[in-house]
Amino acid sequence: MIIPVKWSDEGVLMLDQRLLPTEETWLTLKTYTEVADGIRDMVVRGAPAIGVSAAYGIALGAKQFVGTNMVDFEDELDYVGEVLGKTRPTAVNLFWAIDEMKKTFAEAKAEGKSISEIKQILLDKAKTIHEEDIEAQRLIASFGGELLENDSTVLTHCNAGALATGGVWGTALGVIRGAVNQGKNIHVFADETRPYLQGARLTAWELKEDNIPVTLITDNMSGYMMKKGRVQAVVVGSDRIAANGDVANKIGTYMVAVLAKEHGIPFYVAAPLSTVDLNCPTGEEIPIEERDAREVTHIKGIQLAPEGIEIGNPAFDVTPNHLVTAIITEKGVARAPYSESLKKQFED
Amino acid sequence: MIIPVKWSDEGVLMLDQRLLPTEETWLTLKTYTEVADGIRDMVVRGAPAIGVSAAYGIALGAKQFVGTNMVDFEDELDYVGEVLGKTRPTAVNLFWAIDEMKKTFAEAKAEGKSISEIKQILLDKAKTIHEEDIEAQRLIASFGGELLENDSTVLTHCNAGALATGGVWGTALGVIRGAVNQGKNIHVFADETRPYLQGARLTAWELKEDNIPVTLITDNMSGYMMKKGRVQAVVVGSDRIAANGDVANKIGTYMVAVLAKEHGIPFYVAAPLSTVDLNCPTGEEIPIEERDAREVTHIKGIQLAPEGIEIGNPAFDVTPNHLVTAIITEKGVARAPYSESLKKQFED
Repeated sequence: MIIPVKWSDEGVLMLDQRLLPTEETWLTLKTYTEVADGIRDMVVRGAPAIGVSAAYGIALGAKQFVGTNMVDFEDELDYVGEVLGKTRPTAVNLFWAIDEMKKTFAEAKAEGKSISEIKQILLDKAKTIHEEDIEAQRLIASFGGELLENDSTVLTHCNAGALATGGVWGTALGVIRGAVNQGKNIHVFADETRPYLQGARLTAWELKEDNIPVTLITDNMSGYMMKKGRVQAVVVGSDRIAANGDVANKIGTYMVAVLAKEHGIPFYVAAPLSTVDLNCPTGEEIPIEERDAREVTHIKGIQLAPEGIEIGNPAFDVTPNHLVTAIITEKGVARAPYSESLKKQFED
Repeated sequence: MIIPVKWSDEGVLMLDQRLLPTEETWLTLKTYTEVADGIRDMVVRGAPAIGVSAAYGIALGAKQFVGTNMVDFEDELDYVGEVLGKTRPTAVNLFWAIDEMKKTFAEAKAEGKSISEIKQILLDKAKTIHEEDIEAQRLIASFGGELLENDSTVLTHCNAGALATGGVWGTALGVIRGAVNQGKNIHVFADETRPYLQGARLTAWELKEDNIPVTLITDNMSGYMMKKGRVQAVVVGSDRIAANGDVANKIGTYMVAVLAKEHGIPFYVAAPLSTVDLNCPTGEEIPIEERDAREVTHIKGIQLAPEGIEIGNPAFDVTPNHLVTAIITEKGVARAPYSESLKKQFED
């Protein structure tokens, strides 16, 4: 059972995903700035896992506060939220978790709680966010597992597994684990997912740990496999889903979606409602993070490309809603028109 | 001016493309088995370059022969052709070049030439194949350059450059060089082309050497760039073109072609007629080479994926003719229906 982020009395524990699959190292992040660095540097990644980590980061920032003045405490927490909010721009779960923590603070303050009580309330809230994230994935696994057929091969891109979330299930890999739990025989194609190789390093590792059969391919092989009839469904996670069902996810997801359509293969997105941003009308408004050139030109310090070459490195792309067969959340399976079905899930 | 394969009195000189872009090392291959190993191990790669190398390999095999009996000489040359023919199954230029050399032998033998005369005739033929390959690319560059628009961005996959051919122009990069020579302002997106990174290592290097602006992207970014309107044309090379215009090329080409269609972007294939296999009715009959798992799981000895993971590594895919806007050869620009237009180019 993989749980990539944990709370401890010494601080936030994170499994260092940069070192997987060759090393399993846990870091103890003792300050909220260390948590922010951990998110930015991708010690932890994946939208739900970033949300959980940010919640713990705010609890840690609260714990670090040594003053006695409530105004200072509130200022400090606002600042902690700002620092955490600047780490990764695309994953909406980050901002969702920061908002949830802020709301919890505001309520506790309104109820006249003391600083020390509020510190505990914030920690409890972070733990609840974590537990609810795991529970949401358990439901996603159950709903989504129903969509996969027995004896089928499912392609996934990037890592939307236990490692990308609060743990245990994962979103896209949750759907696959759900189907396996329902007694189905599922084989997985994992796109390696350049430049950061989340598929090769993390998805392949997670599935191997769980004894779910997996074949690793490079990102440019999925079309070949689809054309050969070797893929029956695609399941991916998401970093942000707009109100109209446009889906931001790891760069390359859009290409997989176009290819799935071309081959008549269903394209499923699995994500908790905390990934759905009703304030974002369409995918056009989702900010896309550009990351460092070195992620493309080097692997573990080894130079792959000529010195000083110009590169592009958008970390995410947007898949328009018309390419999405269904969106699986903890509330069930949403289908087009998503502007109605997603809104309804929030109201249920 | 890049010429990746050369003849010398010491043997066949090959620029070791495995070490680019960080090292420029030339190997001297003194026997035909060393040439075969060089092709198999991808010291040289790219269909036309493989053809030229195989022709030199046969000339070298002839030179190595120390007997005086014509029957033994012929047997030996057949064996040399067999060894070279087993190196890479997909590139038809390999078999084309071996056949051309065999025909030359048969003619010389029929004319009553001596073994020592035939050795020289075979070397001359190999040099002619090399020169004609460069000339074919000059024409491809000229015809293809006309198809690209001024101030446009062209996406290419893998390396179909001077390095992939007899030299100087290249096929897909020949088209780009042709357009630049015609005074056009062309920007190139180079797919890095996993697993072997021919785009990152070779295409980026070649274009940088020629001061043609190039942006390196990972293979999963081309859809994003197309959707953003940043790609006006795609140009790729080919390892084998079937009689009906189906195109075998580096794995991932098919995905780029599907995406080009989705975005209304022309998809051009540039290749000499030696790449067109009229004996292959459709792409279905083109053998696809599966390469070693380690190309996917490791980069320069560094482990990227879990130990013992199952992988797929088809080196090529087939793009069906309906996705191909035009095929540019040394005879001009062929368009659908290719079964007629390609056949006509052979007859012209």
